[in-house]
Parts: sequence; C-alpha cells; structure tokens
Amino acid sequence: MKLRAKPLNLEVGGKPVVIMNSADAESLGLHALERARLKTDGKEMVAIADTAENFARPGEIVTTNSVNSFLKIRSGQSLSVMREKEPESVFFIRKKLNNGRLEPNELKEIVKDTVARELSDIELASFITALHILGMSMEETEHFSRAMISNGKKLGLKGTIVDKHSIGGIPGDKTSMVAVPIIAASGLVIPKTSSRAITSPAGTADRMEVLAPVEHTIEEIKKIVRKTGGCLVWGGALELAPADDAFIQIEFPLGIDPLLLPSILSKKKAVGADFVVIDIPTGRGAKIKTVGDARELSEEFVELGKRLGMKITCGITFGEQPLGRAIGPALEAREALETLSGKGPKDVAEKVSNIVGLLFEMVGKGNANAALRILKSGKAEKKFRQIIAEQGGNPKVNADDIAIGEKSADVVAEREGKVLWIRNAEIAAIAKEAGAPKDKGAGILLHKKTGDKVRRGEKLFAIHSGNNFELNAALKLAEETKPFVVGKEFEEKMLLDKFPSKMPHKKAFVFER
Amino acid sequence: MKLRAKPLNLEVGGKPVVIMNSADAESLGLHALERARLKTDGKEMVAIADTAENFARPGEIVTTNSVNSFLKIRSGQSLSVMREKEPESVFFIRKKLNNGRLEPNELKEIVKDTVARELSDIELASFITALHILGMSMEETEHFSRAMISNGKKLGLKGTIVDKHSIGGIPGDKTSMVAVPIIAASGLVIPKTSSRAITSPAGTADRMEVLAPVEHTIEEIKKIVRKTGGCLVWGGALELAPADDAFIQIEFPLGIDPLLLPSILSKKKAVGADFVVIDIPTGRGAKIKTVGDARELSEEFVELGKRLGMKITCGITFGEQPLGRAIGPALEAREALETLSGKGPKDVAEKVSNIVGLLFEMVGKGNANAALRILKSGKAEKKFRQIIAEQGGNPKVNADDIAIGEKSADVVAEREGKVLWIRNAEIAAIAKEAGAPKDKGAGILLHKKTGDKVRRGEKLFAIHSGNNFELNAALKLAEETKPFVVGKEFEEKMLLDKFPSKMPHKKAFVFER
Repeated sequence: MKLRAKPLNLEVGGKPVVIMNSADAESLGLHALERARLKTDGKEMVAIADTAENFARPGEIVTTNSVNSFLKIRSGQSLSVMREKEPESVFFIRKKLNNGRLEPNELKEIVKDTVARELSDIELASFITALHILGMSMEETEHFSRAMISNGKKLGLKGTIVDKHSIGGIPGDKTSMVAVPIIAASGLVIPKTSSRAITSPAGTADRMEVLAPVEHTIEEIKKIVRKTGGCLVWGGALELAPADDAFIQIEFPLGIDPLLLPSILSKKKAVGADFVVIDIPTGRGAKIKTVGDARELSEEFVELGKRLGMKITCGITFGEQPLGRAIGPALEAREALETLSGKGPKDVAEKVSNIVGLLFEMVGKGNANAALRILKSGKAEKKFRQIIAEQGGNPKVNADDIAIGEKSADVVAEREGKVLWIRNAEIAAIAKEAGAPKDKGAGILLHKKTGDKVRRGEKLFAIHSGNNFELNAALKLAEETKPFVVGKEFEEKMLLDKFPSKMPHKKAFVFER
Repeated sequence: MKLRAKPLNLEVGGKPVVIMNSADAESLGLHALERARLKTDGKEMVAIADTAENFARPGEIVTTNSVNSFLKIRSGQSLSVMREKEPESVFFIRKKLNNGRLEPNELKEIVKDTVARELSDIELASFITALHILGMSMEETEHFSRAMISNGKKLGLKGTIVDKHSIGGIPGDKTSMVAVPIIAASGLVIPKTSSRAITSPAGTADRMEVLAPVEHTIEEIKKIVRKTGGCLVWGGALELAPADDAFIQIEFPLGIDPLLLPSILSKKKAVGADFVVIDIPTGRGAKIKTVGDARELSEEFVELGKRLGMKITCGITFGEQPLGRAIGPALEAREALETLSGKGPKDVAEKVSNIVGLLFEMVGKGNANAALRILKSGKAEKKFRQIIAEQGGNPKVNADDIAIGEKSADVVAEREGKVLWIRNAEIAAIAKEAGAPKDKGAGILLHKKTGDKVRRGEKLFAIHSGNNFELNAALKLAEETKPFVVGKEFEEKMLLDKFPSKMPHKKAFVFER
C-alpha cells in the first residue's frame, strides 16, 4: 500500500513509531501496535504502527522522529507500507511467558531487539513481568549478561581494575565518595560510574556534582582515570549497557527489578573490572531485610561474577538507619570531604574502610586496617582533590565553602527517652520534599542517631531547603510521618504494623544499578 | 508548575496523554509515563505524561485528544501541572505481580481504572502477563467478572433468555447461524452477539453481514429480539464489557488470553442469559487438544456460571477438521442457508442439533432430536429469514444469490490414497491469504474431508478470491503448507514434528470471546 508521509517532530521513547488511519491499517490486516515495513526508494525499516481515526487521514501515514531520520522522510513523500511479521524475539518472549527456558541465542536476540528499540512497550513489560514472576536460571542470567555486554561500549583501561557497587536504599550513603579515593590512592584503578537519584534524595552522581562536573565522555573518563587512577562520574549516557536503559524505562513504573544482577554486573564488566565489591545494606528499613536474604543475593552475585570472569565479594552492611548525619547532595558532599580530612562521623569511616578492605583482601593489599591507614594518612583526601581537579572542579574546596539550603527548621523530640529507631524511607521522603536532589542544598542533618538519649524539646534533626515553601512541606511531612521513634525502651513500642490497613504498602523500591 | 498548552489532534488509544519537555518533567520529579494532574480554571484531570527533548519545548505541554476534549483546551492556554501519585489500582496490580490474592474491592478498582483508561499500557501488559502466569482463583475470577459486568451496559430483555458461545478455532464453524434460528423458533429468547474475525478467516459477525447489517445499537437489538426472539449482531461496539475491549488490545499482541472466562461470561450476563451452552471444539488442530483439557475448562465455565447466576452446559465437539465444506464469510453464509433448507452437509446439522439439544435439555424442551425436528420442519429457516429482515437484509435471499470470489483455482491430490488429516491452521491461513474476511467472497470450498478416498489429480479443495493476485498468493501458500495429508494408511505418516526445529512455533491463538 502506498501512503503519503506526514512527518511529525515527535520522539516516542527512541522507538520507530508510525500512525496510520484505522481503515488503511485494516486493509493491510494490521492491528494497532503490530509492525509495518516501510520502504522508500533506497531504504527500508520496520516500525511499530499505531492507528487513529482522525489524526492520520486515509492515505496518510504520520511518521515520528526515529523513522524521519532513518528514512530521511520529506513531507508528502510516498511510502510503501506493508504488514511485517513479529521479530523472532517476540516468540522467545512468549516462550518465557509459558515458563520455557531461553537458550543463549534466544536471549541474544531479545537483547539485540531491545537495544534496536524493535520491541513494543507492551512486549517489554510482559517480558519483564514474566522474569519477575518466573525468574531466570543462572545459565540464562549469564547469557543475558553476555548479550548486554556485547551490545554495549567498553572502557578498555589498563592496570588492576576494580569496582565497587551498592544496591542502595540507605539515605546519606556517601560510601563511594570516600572509598574511590582510598582505592585509587592504593594504586588500584577504579573507573567508578554512578547513577543519579531515581527515588532517593541523592545518588552518588548528584553528590559528586556538587564538587565537580560528572558528565564526561568515555574518552574523557579514560583520561581522568589514567591520570588519577579513579573517577566519580555519571554512568547514565555512556551506553555501557544500552539494553539496561531500555529495561529500566519499563521496570521503574512497575516497581519491579528482575534484571538486577545482569544489569549491575554487565556494567562492571564493561568498565573492565576484575575485582568487584558489592555493598548490600541490610536490616529493617533497608531493601534487604535479613542477613539470610542478603547471603542468598550475595551467592548469586558471586556465581554470576565467576561466570563472567570477575571475582566478587559482597559486604553485608548495617542498614537500619541513615549513614552518617547528612542527607542531600551538598550536605553529603560536605560530610564526605570531612570524612576524608579525618573529621567525619565514625560510622562513615567504619563502613568505608570495611568495604574497601574487602576489595583489598581480594587483590592481596591487606584489609580494612590498610584502608583506614590510607584514609588517616591524608593520601585519600589528596587523591580526591586530584580527581575533583581532573573532572573540572575546584580542588581546593573546603567543606564550609559548600552552599547548603539557607532556609532551615528543626524537628525536636516530643518526649524524653532514647531514639529507638529511625525510619529510612520517611527520612528520604522528607529530604525529597525539601527539594533534594534537584535543589542540591536541600536535605537533612541528623543531630541524634539510634540509641542516643534525648530530652523533651531537644533537636532531633534539621531540615534545609532553598525556599520556605518546600521547607514547610517537608516539615509538615516530618510531623505526619515521625521518622524518629523515641521511647524509654523497646518494650513500650511493640506494635510494628496492622493488617488490613487502609492503604496498600507503598511502591516497591528499585535497587541502584 | 504553569505550562502553555499546545493541543494536538492525536488519539492515544483513548488514553489521556500529555507530552512535556524533559527538563520540566525533571523539575516536577516526574519520570516518563508517570502521571500528571492538570488543572484549568474550572476543571482538572489526571493524564499519563510522556517526556521529550524537542517535541515539547520548555514551558510547553502537548495535550492529546482525551485531554483536549475533557479540559476544553485552547492553544496557548495556561495549565497548572503537578506530579500525581499512582492510582491505587497500580498497587493492586503490583500485589498480583508478587503472587498476592486480590480482594473484590481491589479487582473492582482495577476494572474501573481500566475502563476509565487510567492505566498505562505497561501496567496493563504487566497485569495481564501476571494473570497468564499465576492465574486467578475462582473467587477472584468471580469478582473480576462482576466488576466487568457492573462497568458495562445491559440489554434488559424479558422471557427465557439463553445464549450460545464457541471458543472458536475451527475454520468453517457456522454453528451459530443455524443454531440461533432453531432456538428462537422454539420460543426461547437468544440475543446473540458475535465477534468479527480476529485471527480467523471469518467470525460469525462477518458471515452474517453477508446477509444483513450486523451493526446495531442496543435499542435496535432489543427491538429485533422482541419481534423475532433472536438476532445475530456484532457485539464489538455495544460496550457490554468495555473493560474487556481494553484488555484485548493488550492480550492480542502478546498472544495470551488469561481473561477468557470473565470475558465470555460477563458478556453473557450482560445480555441477561440464564442458560448458556458453550461449544469447546477439541482435538489435534483445535485450540483444546484433549477431552481431558476440555473437561477442565468446562468445569471452570460451569462453576463461574453458577457463581454469576447462570446455568451452563459445555459441549465438547469434534474439532479435528473444518466444519462443513465452506470457509470464508460468503461461502459459509451460503452453506448456513443450505443447512437451514435441509441441503447442507451432515456434520453441520449434526453439530448444530447437538449444541442446541444441550440448551433444550437445560430448559426442559427435549434434546438434540427436538432441535433436529425444528430444523427439518422449515421453522428454523423461516425464523432465520425473519431475523434477516429485521436486521435490514433481504429475507428472500437464496444460497445461489450470494456472490463468491470469481477467481478460483483447484488444489489436487498429488497421490492416490485416503485423506488422513486436514490441518485447520493451514486451511485458515490459506483462506486469509485469499482475502477473507475483508474480501467476503474469498475462501475455500472443500471437496474432500478426512477419511475420503482420493485418486491422484483429483480435486481436494478450491480456493476463491476476488482477484488473481491474492488467489495466487493463497495457491502458493497451499503448495508450501500442504493442508491435506493423503496416504494409504496412518502407518506411513508416523513423524508428527521434530525438535529442535529452525523456527519457533507460530503465534499462540486467542480464544473467541
């Protein structure tokens, strides 16, 4: 069928989409969201075809950006349009839906078509849901990871390359900002890519951006790492795992995360890491609730790492309260600098040195004590300032120079007692309400932590924000959700939850990756 | 945030969709495909927000049809836009994803939001996939059906209302066209709504449309049924089960069908049926392969019917070859008329009288013999012509008046022997290649059926089409797929399939509903 092109400057999630009149689609035997093959004189491609009653008139075909650029569409140009069968990957997705086991070549095909944006959102959502419910065998996970790696770019650095990753979930977790300089100072190579906050008040990329630009090309990253041995950059646009970017777009709205392992480890492989330490914060209020669950997840990380040629150690860390006292990009950047200069909170240094110690053990460079020695020697701070400089920041920055939200308000204890526990999710929500991560100076400064004694009216935490409107909203949320539980002893707070409750539980978290 | 509206005349599957600039979305903390609340001076609504780099400039919001009409958008108008939390139904979908059991009010909420088009394609695809893998308990199925019924329209007729349904899959199955007149002639009331072909060469609505218009409003249908006791109309636009229409849009591209039972029975309930017979064609080449599987499905139909207040009998019928000799809308309409005048093929009359007999047994009107008597008496033919007249067709039509495809070609036996079996799916594909159902005269006329003896070169079947192009394509497909298996005896055709084979199995069928 010949149709007149009507190009529209519209992006549809990177996918080639056309819109045809329903009558024309019916003539081709084409249902909405099936595929059409489009031919011009010289070129052809397959696009997902949507149908409309009026938006495309009979004889017309509305083409969107990916199609316009690939076929170099001119308005009114004649396009030959026919129905296209589904790609083979759709059969493989259907095989998984019916509890089938996917072969390496089938997984490769799915990843290839995902990267080429040839699968519709419906097909991807169905596949991700099937993986969430049915899982993948370790064999499948391995080959899925391999397919993701071979479809992405690689860093190609030299030396003993190591990496560090946290599955996230703990407000204030600035471990990477302190760990990377220690590791680089030890002579190992750590090209650390991080994400921005997805649902949290700050990702490592957001924190680091307070001190230096984090958006660099692969070439720039290689230059930085060759000079300093490390970096702290945003991994989002590097295309180390382009398939993962497409999967995340579907996983996020569903709040499920079945591709956690291949997603994380394919990126570690892409940067060339031979040794990787994975931080799994564990406990009530963390993503992983029990040490048993954390060990199960660890086993999978280690096994998948082995199959992909990486040595992995997992650190199961205490995750029942925020790390350190600062939450929010600027407040955390301050605290990281303070920790590197020996003045930070004890738990940050303790966690960092243990995580780095696990990496040192793998490569034969000692243990947590060795990490602590580098931290205390000042070498890590020096290395951090070198990295800041190479990424384009001010290497002479002091903690006090970092601007934080000028508007602030304190939340005080309503009674005397002990801090029995602090709710991670509520602390994160309040920091976000105050404007983090977009408002880099917004966040929370904790004055008490779990186990501390408080008097009635004593300050528990301060909220910082760039403006009174968000400050008040955060304060209101703090009053509603009461993230600090203060009591004389656990014995007087025995009721944890009730069921049925009026509202379903909040949206599930997604792991950092 | 205030944004300038840029209305676009674009329909997005009936869903309220807006497109914002990525930077504005980020400011609102809004990810692609999350929800935004839009406010004008007087009205507000929730829409699914997509993001774009260029299509919407900063400060702009592109609004599509559902939004434009509901908020009466003028170009350049200022809209107040904020991030909206997910509707509760998304929590319930997530609960199902995690293998939870859905409560009646939760199912109701999902159906309500589906009908209101408030769930994204991703959310619906995930839900449908979870149902496909995990299933629903009978309790869930009941309440899901009830929610579908209460969200749809009702017919509200009087008398003993009965209905008949086939799960489909057998080419040439014109049972309804003969059964409905027999049932109506017996004094029962049968407001039969049917679908058009989805993947088959003809649906009952396509067949009946050869003889009379099938698109009628609910009021017209009531008038027709009050006069004649029956009808044969298209159910697609009646909104008897609007939720189902939305689910089918997702199920079809995925080739899965987890909502079969609620879909079928909610529509039977909507037309007010008290007694329903369900035809389950069974056997190799049918959708249901074994009598055991058919019995399991039957049990669920009967149980769900009981819970919804309908008495149900299932007829498990022989489905290993096409029914009768005609495949394609016009060819089948001819054959139905011939059967009603006593001249049709034996298997059609046999199947129809048995199916009607099961209904008669339920209401105490005898059995298959009673049905056959009505058929032979000429009363059914008279009733059929009355229904044709009331629906706006020519009641005096003769079988020979019905135009069939003028171009035709014969497919002959390559050897002498017996027809060992006929492949349903291949016959259907050839009829579709010839142009059915869009070309109403296109299709197949079988000259031999399973068990018949053939000589080498003798005609097996004829293909009809409106043009030589499609005729040749159908002929080519017939040569490739060889739908007739001719041999001396089964003993010489022992290999049924091989594994692994080069291509995965074809797309899964969907049941008629």
